[in-house]
Amino acid sequence: MYPDSLKQLIESFKYLPGIGEKTAERLAFAVFDMESDKVNCFVESMINVKNKIHYCSKCYNLTENDICSICADNNRDSSVLCVVEDVKSVLLFERLGTFGGYYHVLSGLISPLDGINPEDIGIDKLINRVKENKFNEIILAFKPSIEGETTALYIKKILEGLNITVTKIASGIPIGADMEYIDALTLERALRDRQEIS
Amino acid sequence: MYPDSLKQLIESFKYLPGIGEKTAERLAFAVFDMESDKVNCFVESMINVKNKIHYCSKCYNLTENDICSICADNNRDSSVLCVVEDVKSVLLFERLGTFGGYYHVLSGLISPLDGINPEDIGIDKLINRVKENKFNEIILAFKPSIEGETTALYIKKILEGLNITVTKIASGIPIGADMEYIDALTLERALRDRQEIS
Repeated sequence: MYPDSLKQLIESFKYLPGIGEKTAERLAFAVFDMESDKVNCFVESMINVKNKIHYCSKCYNLTENDICSICADNNRDSSVLCVVEDVKSVLLFERLGTFGGYYHVLSGLISPLDGINPEDIGIDKLINRVKENKFNEIILAFKPSIEGETTALYIKKILEGLNITVTKIASGIPIGADMEYIDALTLERALRDRQEIS
Repeated sequence: MYPDSLKQLIESFKYLPGIGEKTAERLAFAVFDMESDKVNCFVESMINVKNKIHYCSKCYNLTENDICSICADNNRDSSVLCVVEDVKSVLLFERLGTFGGYYHVLSGLISPLDGINPEDIGIDKLINRVKENKFNEIILAFKPSIEGETTALYIKKILEGLNITVTKIASGIPIGADMEYIDALTLERALRDRQEIS
């Protein structure tokens, strides 16, 4: 009953993750009600994201140039490399503002059950980069999960013998959390990885 | 830290209702990961919705033509007009498949508290249409709320003396609902509007 173009826009919104029929309808109506300028801007940015953005040739972060703004920044600490599982993680760490090294973005984590093997997430590119550069420390910053642990162990093993410190970010009890709501695995890890108060 | 076009797309998604920062990021990444064909289709439908769709000159439903497919259908019952508060309501009734008359779409409901007066929702156009055509019955199909009641009473009053039956859709207990979860107002209305079992 809707006009064809509206139907098509509803279908397009439904391709996006987490958007069902009702939400797609609501969003399509919102586009119809939006000012023309904003719709044009929306359309333009969508085309640009698809055409201009690609992966940084060094770290596989997203960029519109050959290398991303972080890799292009020569003032960062070239002795530390932080390996993350996706592009969003880079932003999370950058928002902290306390990490001054470089990043390397994998495309996910190893997960044999889902058929995701080391070669699927670009670990070979990471290894090549590590071999070609003189990093003192590789920080593995994956989420604490079976996949995260597997990927960390795999990278640690491959980098053995290269005389590089391989660390991983701490897992434990989040700041502000109530002890009674912490799951057993996290509590066990927090106990195991206890640190001397200095 | 994100490339400019990605930032802009995230901002664009945030203009849509109910989409916050996190969801906008997720959707923008989804567009980046989408096949080019689908993005082109998305963009095209967005432009078409903005440029091709307008209000039906008869009933104010959405259409790509001068009059909508319902108004253009001569096989419908021209003696009954169903007045609804928005375009989506038309679809809801059409999905039922049991209403064979024509529609008139208002742009909302009267709500003095929000500064929405009869002239803002196009009641004059409805009145003109009713005066120019020979409808036997006008069905008011608004949601049961203060705004819905106000709008229904206002229309009823204006149409007085025109010798047209003005009805409104029943409000009461939804089919399948548990009695104990029904609010007092609905229960009161259901009791008041009881019907003889025939």
